[in-house]
Amino acid sequence: MTDTADATDASDLRKTVDRFWATAEARDWDAFADTLADDVVYTLPQTRERIRGKERFVRFNREFPSDWHLRIERVVAEPGHVVTWLIFTVGQEEMPAVSFFTGDEKGNITSMTDFWPEPYEPPANRDHLAELTERY
Amino acid sequence: MTDTADATDASDLRKTVDRFWATAEARDWDAFADTLADDVVYTLPQTRERIRGKERFVRFNREFPSDWHLRIERVVAEPGHVVTWLIFTVGQEEMPAVSFFTGDEKGNITSMTDFWPEPYEPPANRDHLAELTERY
Repeated sequence: MTDTADATDASDLRKTVDRFWATAEARDWDAFADTLADDVVYTLPQTRERIRGKERFVRFNREFPSDWHLRIERVVAEPGHVVTWLIFTVGQEEMPAVSFFTGDEKGNITSMTDFWPEPYEPPANRDHLAELTERY
Repeated sequence: MTDTADATDASDLRKTVDRFWATAEARDWDAFADTLADDVVYTLPQTRERIRGKERFVRFNREFPSDWHLRIERVVAEPGHVVTWLIFTVGQEEMPAVSFFTGDEKGNITSMTDFWPEPYEPPANRDHLAELTERY
């Protein structure tokens, strides 16, 4: 036992979020559940959906359709907050996902808010700026 | 002069990004430009657009159409990295924007990658999970 055993710092929640994504990818739903606070709240602002509680949230992920896989593009963390930028793949299709996490004093995830940005064409009202940009 | 005068830490880039958004909202384009490294790279993954260099990037923002306003919803920062979650408003319309920043040793912004997630309806292939969610 050390005096840092119960310490909360940025690395705690970062490590929890690392486990969250690793266990999701591995479909290890018991270990996935262990990263969550009992009263975790999951929010999808684009659909205005919210899921409350560990049991419901685990089931939402466990039963989510399609053979998805993920890789981590970037993680940014500070005490109590983590953001992940992931690339999800389903077959040949790739899509980014950005998730904001908060954690409690035990380093468990208390909230997750997901964004799933879709491709779109540059809008016509900024055609005059097209000379500034390159497409990749 | 202190020994931390040239230090790079999370707060440096966080402060720069605070100025970046405050000066954008104020349309103070000279002060906005001062937050940027000369070779800043701006990337919009959804349109696969990229803008290289301070001058082009300032012009893209200065000449961007519509009377937009912004407020900051969340900022997460660690040394050299900042993420902002903003709410942009144009008239009565509100939309979220998520931006990933990196910075150099002077605390200037070297890259920004923006996501603009749009509303969508929950997809039919996860209708069996609808009982888990509430709409807000």
